[in-house]
Amino acid sequence: MLHVPENVIVKEVGPRDGLQNEPANVDTADKVAWIDKLSEAGFSYIEISSFVHPKWIPQLSDAKEVAAAIKRHPGITYAALVPNRKGLERAIETDIDEASIFMSSSETHNKKNINKSLEETYPVLKEVVEGAKSAGKSVRGYVSTVFGCPYEGEVPIDQILRVCDRLFEMGIDELSLGDTIGVADPKQVDETLTEIKKRFSFDRIAMHFHNTRGMALANVLVSLEHGVTTFDGSVGGLGGCPYAKGASGNLATDDLIHMLHQMGIGTGIQLEKLTEAARFIQEKINKPLPSHQMQMLNRS
Amino acid sequence: MLHVPENVIVKEVGPRDGLQNEPANVDTADKVAWIDKLSEAGFSYIEISSFVHPKWIPQLSDAKEVAAAIKRHPGITYAALVPNRKGLERAIETDIDEASIFMSSSETHNKKNINKSLEETYPVLKEVVEGAKSAGKSVRGYVSTVFGCPYEGEVPIDQILRVCDRLFEMGIDELSLGDTIGVADPKQVDETLTEIKKRFSFDRIAMHFHNTRGMALANVLVSLEHGVTTFDGSVGGLGGCPYAKGASGNLATDDLIHMLHQMGIGTGIQLEKLTEAARFIQEKINKPLPSHQMQMLNRS
Repeated sequence: MLHVPENVIVKEVGPRDGLQNEPANVDTADKVAWIDKLSEAGFSYIEISSFVHPKWIPQLSDAKEVAAAIKRHPGITYAALVPNRKGLERAIETDIDEASIFMSSSETHNKKNINKSLEETYPVLKEVVEGAKSAGKSVRGYVSTVFGCPYEGEVPIDQILRVCDRLFEMGIDELSLGDTIGVADPKQVDETLTEIKKRFSFDRIAMHFHNTRGMALANVLVSLEHGVTTFDGSVGGLGGCPYAKGASGNLATDDLIHMLHQMGIGTGIQLEKLTEAARFIQEKINKPLPSHQMQMLNRS
Repeated sequence: MLHVPENVIVKEVGPRDGLQNEPANVDTADKVAWIDKLSEAGFSYIEISSFVHPKWIPQLSDAKEVAAAIKRHPGITYAALVPNRKGLERAIETDIDEASIFMSSSETHNKKNINKSLEETYPVLKEVVEGAKSAGKSVRGYVSTVFGCPYEGEVPIDQILRVCDRLFEMGIDELSLGDTIGVADPKQVDETLTEIKKRFSFDRIAMHFHNTRGMALANVLVSLEHGVTTFDGSVGGLGGCPYAKGASGNLATDDLIHMLHQMGIGTGIQLEKLTEAARFIQEKINKPLPSHQMQMLNRS
């Protein structure tokens, strides 16, 4: 009865999305060693840091040093978040492979997060996309609060589609739809993907779930049934969203990979090596990681 | 795309399956007050205790006192676990509505859990079913290790079906299929339910998932898509299985109800009152309950 893809791509965003939401300050050398471990695990994509101004995310102020020191594996896209032209300049100097841009689908969250209205955000991002493209970089877009905004509640599907349209019109290569505060339920994901599918090819859509209410893997399942083949995860469940009240819990890459492999879905990633990377960063942040895989390991 | 039932029945097993796996000793009066709170939340079924010999589960040695003291609501089935004829005699004296019987689908787990082979178990259970029936009680069967045994690994579907057949032949009214060690994945649930559906009506089948590896709600989702309408949960995620190494984490009733309601599926249960009951027992066992709903509440 269950029809799901044979292979999916899992993108590791922990070094950016995980660490940016961790109070702990991890040494640059440890970040580098950790990302090298992730490279060894078999990912085809790792988001390594953010070129946001260090004032906003001091934990990632060493983006340039990290990008310079990691071992680059052929076949792996090393990406970094880029908020504006200045960030792009720094990013390009480090020769990252891909720039990620981001915005919310809801006005209030966008305003609180990046201090701009949606309309004010587009030109800033367009400049980044054009700059990145002319430097030969691919670009990924993140849209947050797709399944609910902590300030506005449910975001109308038309508004989400409008934001997606605008980003694709700029020339981005892929769009990651984020459940920033972890409120999505499988029915909502089903309804949203039904609309998304009418407009965009799933080759260019990724799903980015949070497990705040325990529904992330159920949401992955319904996405798989729709034919989605790209998912974001943060190893060990590291990180969350500091601006969203009550939010926490990026979907753990290890829990995701475990489920996919159990279902016979290929990812190219070795769970054992991924777990090794999770243990490594757990030791560095000095607190237990919340993924089920790590909880089981920590208990044993 | 997603086709799921409009209404489902959620059965609360926390006072039995939760507490039996908690080291904390909860006072009888607190158990009674807690069960009364669960009755107020709108359940149609609560498993209140176990008439297993107190030597095995001292935490539930007050089954008789609990059964005598709780407020019985019309329309709620108050059930208790009954391992054998002696247990049944005690249970009938307390006038419970339903007796639950239990066994494993795997030899080794059954042997370690109840010290009998599968064949040796049937006559003992048959005596309970006949005794319960002639006392006018309904009977529920639990089959554990359906999706994997901690000693034998995967249990062949034929063996599972054989155990189910034998229990239904005894005259049980409903069968609850347990993922005792929390290893089931959605594909496995899909395959198992495909076989179960050929043989038994889903009117008489319940699913009992554990969230050990984070897949419980994904497994609920695929079960809903198959048309399953009865699920077990333990409020707050209380309890686990002490005999299964590394096992923990009954699916939390509150996380289950939350997802179902978000999906527009009716249960008749009030989440707020359920949460109140979860807070109450959390205070009594004096440690944070693991459900996502309770984690969010404890953080706020």
